[in-house]
Amino acid sequence: MAVRTIEVRERVMARNDELAGAVRGRLAAHGVTALNLVSSPGAGKTFLLEKTLAALGEELDIAVVTGDVQTQNDADRLARHTTRLVQAVVTGGACHLDALQVSAALDAIDLDRTRLLFIENVGNLVCPASWDLGELHKVVLFTVTEGEDKPLKYPKMFQNSRYAVLTKTDLLPYVPFDVALAKANALQVNASLEFFELSATTGAGMDAWFEFLRSIVKQGAGV
Amino acid sequence: MAVRTIEVRERVMARNDELAGAVRGRLAAHGVTALNLVSSPGAGKTFLLEKTLAALGEELDIAVVTGDVQTQNDADRLARHTTRLVQAVVTGGACHLDALQVSAALDAIDLDRTRLLFIENVGNLVCPASWDLGELHKVVLFTVTEGEDKPLKYPKMFQNSRYAVLTKTDLLPYVPFDVALAKANALQVNASLEFFELSATTGAGMDAWFEFLRSIVKQGAGV
Repeated sequence: MAVRTIEVRERVMARNDELAGAVRGRLAAHGVTALNLVSSPGAGKTFLLEKTLAALGEELDIAVVTGDVQTQNDADRLARHTTRLVQAVVTGGACHLDALQVSAALDAIDLDRTRLLFIENVGNLVCPASWDLGELHKVVLFTVTEGEDKPLKYPKMFQNSRYAVLTKTDLLPYVPFDVALAKANALQVNASLEFFELSATTGAGMDAWFEFLRSIVKQGAGV
Repeated sequence: MAVRTIEVRERVMARNDELAGAVRGRLAAHGVTALNLVSSPGAGKTFLLEKTLAALGEELDIAVVTGDVQTQNDADRLARHTTRLVQAVVTGGACHLDALQVSAALDAIDLDRTRLLFIENVGNLVCPASWDLGELHKVVLFTVTEGEDKPLKYPKMFQNSRYAVLTKTDLLPYVPFDVALAKANALQVNASLEFFELSATTGAGMDAWFEFLRSIVKQGAGV
C-alpha cells in the first residue's frame, strides 16, 4: 500500500508540475512576474500585502491570488486596500495551493492589466514547499516570534525559496530572537537566500522591499 | 486519478486509525494519559514543555515524543530539562506524526514508569488535525502574534481539539490582538473548547495549566 501511495503521489506531483509549467508560460506571455508567498500561519503575509498594495498596487499593476483552507478573510482584507482584482481560492482542507487552482484563479484576472502577481499560499511551512505554482520565485516569510531554528526544522521551504523576509521586527525588543543566528541557519540550508527585514506595522525596512519589487518587475519586462 | 488518490488516502487513514486504536489500548493498559500538542510552527510547544517538565516532570512521571520534519532540536532541548526519556521522531518531510511513528516511539519508553505522555506534533495547523495518534485529547496552541482569525481559517484543528492554549500572552501589550475575539472565533468552530491563557516566559497562567495536568492524570488513573 505504501508503494501504491508513493506512485499515486508521484503522478499527482508530475501532473502539477505540467500545469505549473503551463501557468508559467501563460504569465510570461503576458509579461507578469509572479511571487509565491509562503510562511507559517500568522507570519504576516496578508498584512505585508495590504501595505504593498497601498504603496505599489497601481504603480506595479499588482493582482493577488489568496489561498486559505477555509474562509475568504484574506481576500476580503486585501480587497479593502485595492480596486484591483483579488482572487480567493479556498482549498477546503488541503494544506497548500496547487497549480490547477492557480490556473483557474488566473481565468478571473485581467493579465494584460497585471505586471506583478502575488500568490499568497496557505499558511504552512511544510506542504507548499513541494508545489510549483508557476511562480518566478518563492518568498518565505518568517517572524521574530517563531524562533531562529525554523529554517533547520523546515529546510525544504527555505531551500526552495529565493528570498526570505523576516517580519514583525518591531517585536524584536520583546522576544529572545537572534537575527544573525536565524540568518545563519537559513543560509546553512540555502546559501543563496537573500533577506529582507521589515515591520509592516512601523514601516521599517519596507522601502527596501518596495525597491526590490520595482526592480523584479522591471527585470520581468526585460527593461 | 483524483478518485484513485482519494481511495488510497482513505485506506491510509483507515490503517492509521487502526494503529491509533492499538496505541490507545496500550496506553490505557499502562494507565498513561496522552496529550497531542498541535500548533503553527513557533507557537511555543517546546518551551511550554520545557517549563512543564521542570515543574511536573517527576511529580507526574512525564514522557515526551517529539515530531519534527527535520532535526532533533526539540528533543535535545527537552532532554536538557529532564532525566526522563524524550523520544524524537523525524518525519523526513511529512507534515504530521502518524500512529505508526508514535507506536514505534513508545517501544523506547518505559510506560510502566510513565503517567503523562506528551506528543509534540509537527508545527502545522493543517495536517495533524486529521491524524489520530491514540491520544486522549488534542491540545491546540496558538499565539497572540498569530491573529484572532486562525480558528476560522484552520477550523478542523480547533474542531478536533478539546483544549486551546493561548501562548505568549506577555506580548499582548505589543500586538493588536483581541483575546475575546480570538476565543469567540474558536468557540464558533468548537463550542466545547476550554481555554488556557499563559506565558511560559513570565509564568503567568502556568499554575492553571499545571493544575489541569494534575487533574487529568488523576482522572486517567481512575482516582
